[in-house]
Amino acid sequence: MSMWKITKLMKVKPKSPILIEGLPGIGNVGKIAVDFLISELKAKKIYNIFSYTFPHSVFVNENNLVDLPKIELYYKKMPKNDLLLLAGDIQPVDEVSSYEFCEKILDIFQSYKGKEIITLGGIGLAEMPKKPRVFCTANNKEIINKYKKDTELNDKIYGVVGPIIGVTGLLLGLAEKRKIKAIALLAETLGHPLYLGIKGAREELKILNKKLNLKLNLTKLDKEIKEIESELIRRTRDISTVSKQLAFKKLSKRKETNYIG
Amino acid sequence: MSMWKITKLMKVKPKSPILIEGLPGIGNVGKIAVDFLISELKAKKIYNIFSYTFPHSVFVNENNLVDLPKIELYYKKMPKNDLLLLAGDIQPVDEVSSYEFCEKILDIFQSYKGKEIITLGGIGLAEMPKKPRVFCTANNKEIINKYKKDTELNDKIYGVVGPIIGVTGLLLGLAEKRKIKAIALLAETLGHPLYLGIKGAREELKILNKKLNLKLNLTKLDKEIKEIESELIRRTRDISTVSKQLAFKKLSKRKETNYIG
Amino acid sequence: MSMWKITKLMKVKPKSPILIEGLPGIGNVGKIAVDFLISELKAKKIYNIFSYTFPHSVFVNENNLVDLPKIELYYKKMPKNDLLLLAGDIQPVDEVSSYEFCEKILDIFQSYKGKEIITLGGIGLAEMPKKPRVFCTANNKEIINKYKKDTELNDKIYGVVGPIIGVTGLLLGLAEKRKIKAIALLAETLGHPLYLGIKGAREELKILNKKLNLKLNLTKLDKEIKEIESELIRRTRDISTVSKQLAFKKLSKRKETNYIG
Amino acid sequence: MSMWKITKLMKVKPKSPILIEGLPGIGNVGKIAVDFLISELKAKKIYNIFSYTFPHSVFVNENNLVDLPKIELYYKKMPKNDLLLLAGDIQPVDEVSSYEFCEKILDIFQSYKGKEIITLGGIGLAEMPKKPRVFCTANNKEIINKYKKDTELNDKIYGVVGPIIGVTGLLLGLAEKRKIKAIALLAETLGHPLYLGIKGAREELKILNKKLNLKLNLTKLDKEIKEIESELIRRTRDISTVSKQLAFKKLSKRKETNYIG
Repeated sequence: MSMWKITKLMKVKPKSPILIEGLPGIGNVGKIAVDFLISELKAKKIYNIFSYTFPHSVFVNENNLVDLPKIELYYKKMPKNDLLLLAGDIQPVDEVSSYEFCEKILDIFQSYKGKEIITLGGIGLAEMPKKPRVFCTANNKEIINKYKKDTELNDKIYGVVGPIIGVTGLLLGLAEKRKIKAIALLAETLGHPLYLGIKGAREELKILNKKLNLKLNLTKLDKEIKEIESELIRRTRDISTVSKQLAFKKLSKRKETNYIG
Repeated sequence: MSMWKITKLMKVKPKSPILIEGLPGIGNVGKIAVDFLISELKAKKIYNIFSYTFPHSVFVNENNLVDLPKIELYYKKMPKNDLLLLAGDIQPVDEVSSYEFCEKILDIFQSYKGKEIITLGGIGLAEMPKKPRVFCTANNKEIINKYKKDTELNDKIYGVVGPIIGVTGLLLGLAEKRKIKAIALLAETLGHPLYLGIKGAREELKILNKKLNLKLNLTKLDKEIKEIESELIRRTRDISTVSKQLAFKKLSKRKETNYIG
Repeated sequence: MSMWKITKLMKVKPKSPILIEGLPGIGNVGKIAVDFLISELKAKKIYNIFSYTFPHSVFVNENNLVDLPKIELYYKKMPKNDLLLLAGDIQPVDEVSSYEFCEKILDIFQSYKGKEIITLGGIGLAEMPKKPRVFCTANNKEIINKYKKDTELNDKIYGVVGPIIGVTGLLLGLAEKRKIKAIALLAETLGHPLYLGIKGAREELKILNKKLNLKLNLTKLDKEIKEIESELIRRTRDISTVSKQLAFKKLSKRKETNYIG
Repeated sequence: MSMWKITKLMKVKPKSPILIEGLPGIGNVGKIAVDFLISELKAKKIYNIFSYTFPHSVFVNENNLVDLPKIELYYKKMPKNDLLLLAGDIQPVDEVSSYEFCEKILDIFQSYKGKEIITLGGIGLAEMPKKPRVFCTANNKEIINKYKKDTELNDKIYGVVGPIIGVTGLLLGLAEKRKIKAIALLAETLGHPLYLGIKGAREELKILNKKLNLKLNLTKLDKEIKEIESELIRRTRDISTVSKQLAFKKLSKRKETNYIG
């Protein structure tokens, strides 16, 4: 479909890679974790993914220049299973493009003879937990047992969460149809739209660090998170301003909503 | 259309079958009734229906594993008219896919030389009635008379309900164009989004039991409903949590709605 | 496009016909007026128009049977210009299908060598006026002068209304591209969603009666309106019930909206 | 795509033209500025752009006649770089048509061997600033330096605004893919849906006047703005009425939203 612009930037031959997805979602838990992995592991960008179904807006970056919304796939060579890291600014907005996007990611994953998929997300709570628990669900019992072993991962998730919306959930469901094992790690976080789930991301990173032997410097991680934290507090303030802007823009475009409710 | 993935799982030769639809809707009355029928009658799954127009989310099942949203058609051999039972987790979301879905169901129904169609739904009231009445409407007077005979079915529905939204209504309207008789049974229920219309479903099941001679064990039915009830109370609690999650997810994806209203 | 099912029911040869549109809108002013015309003039149905882009619901009629939403074109032979009357339960919902619908109506209109188009609508006010004024706008000065002559039609509409949404406005704009003269008559009415603009419709009918020499029995019209009124009061009550139902249905289908706002 | 009707009205040969975009948006800052430029410079209309994806409504103009929503491209010969001015009543509503629209504008721009692009917009604040600042962002550092030189343009925009929604932002992002330099000037304004950002537009015009040597009569500009102001106050009043109308129309079409929230 011409709605999608998928650009391969580099030829790589990953060794039975594991795909880790972390797109924006509840508390941005998954995004924070995968963005940290990409920066710490110095992963290389191998794919640009862009679509006319993405939000019709641009972001201003630290250089005061604009970026179109984008999703990117990164690659990192590892001693055992190589890593594919899926990161981005946004998720596809509507139902059809969310399904289409996941199928395209699975196509790329299979072209690399991928081994398994880990999606990262958050569970929004009314209050911020002191120590967020990490729950998991999957399309297969084996992969749950593999990741639960020697970690605090909690697989009693039935009744704890409802539908898992967007790429974090769909990748699991659609992977099953292709007989690809996939697991979702979902960390507890405060379910407020402006809250950023750094603590939840840290818990997910601990599990990945152990199970995938990533050799992440966790002290550095904690320090790094402090910095991200202050940066995010600033960004949160911005987002709040933006939201107001967007609200007004929306209203001025569609004035009919103005008096409803 | 490639948006639809319809998979035939088994070859059957139903004897002038009656199709009973029970997808999610007001109070989930229809879903509760048809899910009960499928389990009690040990009906066999003959079709999987999936679409990219379905909600882009997955459900966590009792095994802590994920399921894509799906709609399924079941088959049950009966002494007289065989049964086709249409059940699922969701309804198609938008106008066009709702129409398309119904046309596809009618195609399958006609391929089996189906006899008539019964759709099941609810009428949302401000207060829960002690004994829910079951109203009916149809695309044909004869089928109303047939189902009203010897039952408490109330056909004075004009003025009681407004438009019937989704598959429960559309199947009747579109069936008429193909000269297929179709009736909707709509039971009163509490119109609160978290209320599950078990009592309404029971009233609908009583009518079906009598008219279709299903030999349902109604004592068992009552006991079963008790169990469903406590299960549903739990699920309701979950759904409430989920809703909160979803709300936040929605907000974090589309921040512009944040300040509206 | 296969989204549209347009069925010609009867072959007619209208004499330079005038098309009068009255679909649902503000106060249903246009719908009330055109439905009255069809019934009083005993106009004949010549076209059925149906689309998968229409709302995915059915209505229950006075016979307790269901009707799919539909739009119909009626024909009435007259001494001078014959009439084409466009009536229906609904308007196309989204932008693209609203434009497509109007183009299809204009195609039919031109196939009959139509003379001019009159669309009927309402202007929603915060308070119900004692005697509603009727304003007009058009795609051409001449047609305004024609209908203003010897009537109380007010053409100082600039600043009184904003954008005219839906078929009532689009038909004028798109007709201009085909060099077809078209005028909109917009009567003041109470802008409350449950209010039905019978008085506004009467003012529009008076103008049409005079200018098109329809020989409507205005005494009968007043009596008829009384009956419509009590019927509509009943229906209004129903609609209020329905709205509640629909709200719940919507919520149960899309639970994520549940906690927003 | 047949959704788009793009009509070339006149053959021109612009000399490495600069495109200035000013479509409706926050405070309508960009629209006010570009509409003023078109009128002051007596620019010639060279393109009509229309789409079925535009809002399905018409506007009533000063002659009490209707206009379909439209976007237009104007041309003005200048001593140095000629100007292309993009103005209109509306912006494309949804994601896909917003992207498609921008690509089509870039196609036209490149057919004229365009030099650079300036988009104009507003930044909505909670309070109206006495002297609105004008911020900029771009797809390239050079163009920022060019427009910042000898002006009060502020390029420290990171953290001041969030995503820039619609054509004002997308044109920059998509232009970058074609290696076209593009800058956005965003003036502070009151972020209320009914407020019209005339002061912000004036600040943007001052910068354009100086950098593009437009020889605008700024005294006249101030006087003109006074007139626009009183006109706009009137229109604002109208829009408020309209909004109410639209709200009711929306409610009467989609009654299910009526009871939500």
